[in-house]
Amino acid sequence: MKLSARNQFPATVRVVTEGAVMSEVVVEVDGGHELVAAITAESARRLGLAPGKRVVAIIKSTEVILATDD
Amino acid sequence: MKLSARNQFPATVRVVTEGAVMSEVVVEVDGGHELVAAITAESARRLGLAPGKRVVAIIKSTEVILATDD
Amino acid sequence: MKLSARNQFPATVRVVTEGAVMSEVVVEVDGGHELVAAITAESARRLGLAPGKRVVAIIKSTEVILATDD
Amino acid sequence: MKLSARNQFPATVRVVTEGAVMSEVVVEVDGGHELVAAITAESARRLGLAPGKRVVAIIKSTEVILATDD
Amino acid sequence: MKLSARNQFPATVRVVTEGAVMSEVVVEVDGGHELVAAITAESARRLGLAPGKRVVAIIKSTEVILATDD
Amino acid sequence: MKLSARNQFPATVRVVTEGAVMSEVVVEVDGGHELVAAITAESARRLGLAPGKRVVAIIKSTEVILATDD
Repeated sequence: MKLSARNQFPATVRVVTEGAVMSEVVVEVDGGHELVAAITAESARRLGLAPGKRVVAIIKSTEVILATDD
Repeated sequence: MKLSARNQFPATVRVVTEGAVMSEVVVEVDGGHELVAAITAESARRLGLAPGKRVVAIIKSTEVILATDD
Repeated sequence: MKLSARNQFPATVRVVTEGAVMSEVVVEVDGGHELVAAITAESARRLGLAPGKRVVAIIKSTEVILATDD
Repeated sequence: MKLSARNQFPATVRVVTEGAVMSEVVVEVDGGHELVAAITAESARRLGLAPGKRVVAIIKSTEVILATDD
Repeated sequence: MKLSARNQFPATVRVVTEGAVMSEVVVEVDGGHELVAAITAESARRLGLAPGKRVVAIIKSTEVILATDD
Repeated sequence: MKLSARNQFPATVRVVTEGAVMSEVVVEVDGGHELVAAITAESARRLGLAPGKRVVAIIKSTEVILATDD
């Protein structure tokens, strides 16, 4: 499967916090950055997300904001 | 300034492609990942984005999709 | 590949309009609905999108707005 | 009311799962596709969303990701 | 039509900049704030957006980021 | 810090509703408009969001939908 989404980062699940509707999933992107995803709790269950599970974090380019220091 | 957006990655601009309304900005996140942002051309100009410029790439956690291989 | 994104609709590309940075892709979802995606022109090229090409349209549940008539 | 959002699908609510802040709403788009929306619980209450209720599912084109099989 | 989107601001169009695929629309929200929307050029044409036209700017709550100064 | 996001509105927090994963934050934009943000509960805690706290509401232009009456 090839996705139009430009940003796809292989990562490992570190922490899953489950709510009634949404779950927060903290993953560690290969190379060391931590990344947080808020997905439905149902999706987290369906994908079997748990610490150690390998995933890909996908982000569409229109969702990225850039900032400068000055 | 402290942002509610959970994902904030220091990066360096590599390529800016300017359109009439939108610009595509390829940045290299510190540690090596490439990341693409589609922002308005006006924003790219206002921030002075050009190769070598230091930026922070900001992504809200609700915008992240996760995928597994199985 | 299994995605956390809850909405995944098999479809056929009908029209691709290419801009400098963004491309608009009109697809026909199996069953008859027309759906429009705005993705980067680079992604449209990389996926080889052209009329007749089979695709899957993917939409995260947090991106859906609901409306009622009353 | 005419919306700039390109994708507007008439649908019927099937299941509403309410959380403290967010609610998940499963709707059946006319023609048969199931579609999931994550909206605030307050919006679900304000719109009176319940099984059988007619709605329109609205999706901005910049939020759609496309995928191909190859 | 009642929308699940929590933020709906009556406004007047000030400037429309048209690209091949996307258009940038600057509106003045009643009360004085300026707000910028990037929508498809096709939507801007379909809605007849031009300076002076009355519109409502709609923003889903999951798309809002908050920042503090400290 | 200068952000590519075009819409940045100074505001005051009015109500915070905390869920297990997401929190809903109602703010009053200077000039009088009410605006609702759905952010992670963890972000609301990290920013110390509470009634009276000064914030900036940030919205990327690609997330704005426009509507007309006709």
